[in-house]
Amino acid sequence: MPRFRMTVEYDGGPYVGWQRQENGPSVQGAIEAAVLSLTGETVSVRGAGRTDSGVHAIGQVIHADLSKDWSPYKLQNALNAHLRLAGELVSILDVEAVPEFFDARFSAMRRHYLYRIVSRRAPLALEAGKAWWVPKALDHAVMHAAAQKLVGRHDFSTFRSAHCQAHSPVRTLDRLDVTRNGELIEIRATAQSFLHNQIRSFAGTLKLAGEGKWTPEDVQAALEAQNRKACGPVAPPEGLYFMQVDYPEVITDRRRPVSDTDADENDDLP
Amino acid sequence: MPRFRMTVEYDGGPYVGWQRQENGPSVQGAIEAAVLSLTGETVSVRGAGRTDSGVHAIGQVIHADLSKDWSPYKLQNALNAHLRLAGELVSILDVEAVPEFFDARFSAMRRHYLYRIVSRRAPLALEAGKAWWVPKALDHAVMHAAAQKLVGRHDFSTFRSAHCQAHSPVRTLDRLDVTRNGELIEIRATAQSFLHNQIRSFAGTLKLAGEGKWTPEDVQAALEAQNRKACGPVAPPEGLYFMQVDYPEVITDRRRPVSDTDADENDDLP
Repeated sequence: MPRFRMTVEYDGGPYVGWQRQENGPSVQGAIEAAVLSLTGETVSVRGAGRTDSGVHAIGQVIHADLSKDWSPYKLQNALNAHLRLAGELVSILDVEAVPEFFDARFSAMRRHYLYRIVSRRAPLALEAGKAWWVPKALDHAVMHAAAQKLVGRHDFSTFRSAHCQAHSPVRTLDRLDVTRNGELIEIRATAQSFLHNQIRSFAGTLKLAGEGKWTPEDVQAALEAQNRKACGPVAPPEGLYFMQVDYPEVITDRRRPVSDTDADENDDLP
Repeated sequence: MPRFRMTVEYDGGPYVGWQRQENGPSVQGAIEAAVLSLTGETVSVRGAGRTDSGVHAIGQVIHADLSKDWSPYKLQNALNAHLRLAGELVSILDVEAVPEFFDARFSAMRRHYLYRIVSRRAPLALEAGKAWWVPKALDHAVMHAAAQKLVGRHDFSTFRSAHCQAHSPVRTLDRLDVTRNGELIEIRATAQSFLHNQIRSFAGTLKLAGEGKWTPEDVQAALEAQNRKACGPVAPPEGLYFMQVDYPEVITDRRRPVSDTDADENDDLP
């Protein structure tokens, strides 16, 4: 069956999360329903990463197998038309026909996330639900210094939800940068994969550093504790954006298959 | 009575517009209700400009007279707390005590608006209701060239709603710049005041130029026609943002009153 890779944007606010669940509308369910209305086919689409309720995506990547050899252009427009008709806040940004060895989840080499904090006294009106409102002054340079203590290969037990299903708490964090643009503070995180609530745990902990309550050394001590109780409060989901997924060029070039990656090294509701 | 100047941000989506009306919730009504809950006083707040339903503000300026000499800091926090409690998407960004000759509407020297277009094939998910989705390629350089035909003092009858209540269709447009950042096209407009639907009429007309349907000379001919029928389609409200209002320094310095401006030269639902 022809396999299609799609890049997806969504507002996580109205959804229980990426994954299809019994307790409410999901992004995965919205896309599968659009495929069903369009093609009559019941498919299971796979995402590069699961996201929690309220978490947004600008560059989630999915794949789906369809029986017909659609033109990517027509498939994108038709799926978007069905999504709009259903009132979904989900948009297919790009569609590409890919070989069957492409897997949105298991082929992913790196995942990029953004966490947005708006630091100002006034509550958010235009960006309500699109950033974490922190009505306190935050020193982004201290936050960045503290973040550097977390970069690298570590046991991230401290920054992992009790519900995390990954076998190992060890991950390699490639990047955790904190920058400021006026009242907006952006945390950019890159890794092959993340643990459940890992980035939101980082954001909540780095906020303590930004307020001056924790030093960068306190953040390092929290990491070294390898204990969930050492973590700062988990930041809310509405600040988190799934930005981009990198795949090996051999896949996007469609020349030859890539070797398998460790199935455990995959994204789990960061 | 002490007078307070406030800078206000709002999401125009849930409101019938700035102005209090019988047919639904307004931004003005939300602020007046917050003042009433806080102080027990029924006040009428005045805005620098009226905005239509769906039009957003990042820097609307208002004034209100209260009986108590509030600390601006406390007044801002208390009003925001009442607005949040009421579930309003309205936020008071700044409060300042001003002399009684300050008038948010009649003292305004210049008003700045932004119109946002997202030009891409995929519908908007994260920015739904926050920009005009145009699923066509637009040449922003042609749009900018066409916009320059509109800058200056003109009879803007072509770009004025039939419902416009201003006495004169003559206005002086100081700036109409079109820039691009990726898929986002921004139109920035500055004038002392605007006519009803003027900026949305500009945006709809400039979009025709961006598509190649109109030349800059066609836009100039439309202006010179001084006829509403010569206008392009009016762009939707969700792309428009009321950004900033400039006041004479003598007012913000609180040293001496400013001379009156022409009452007709005031903003009317651009």
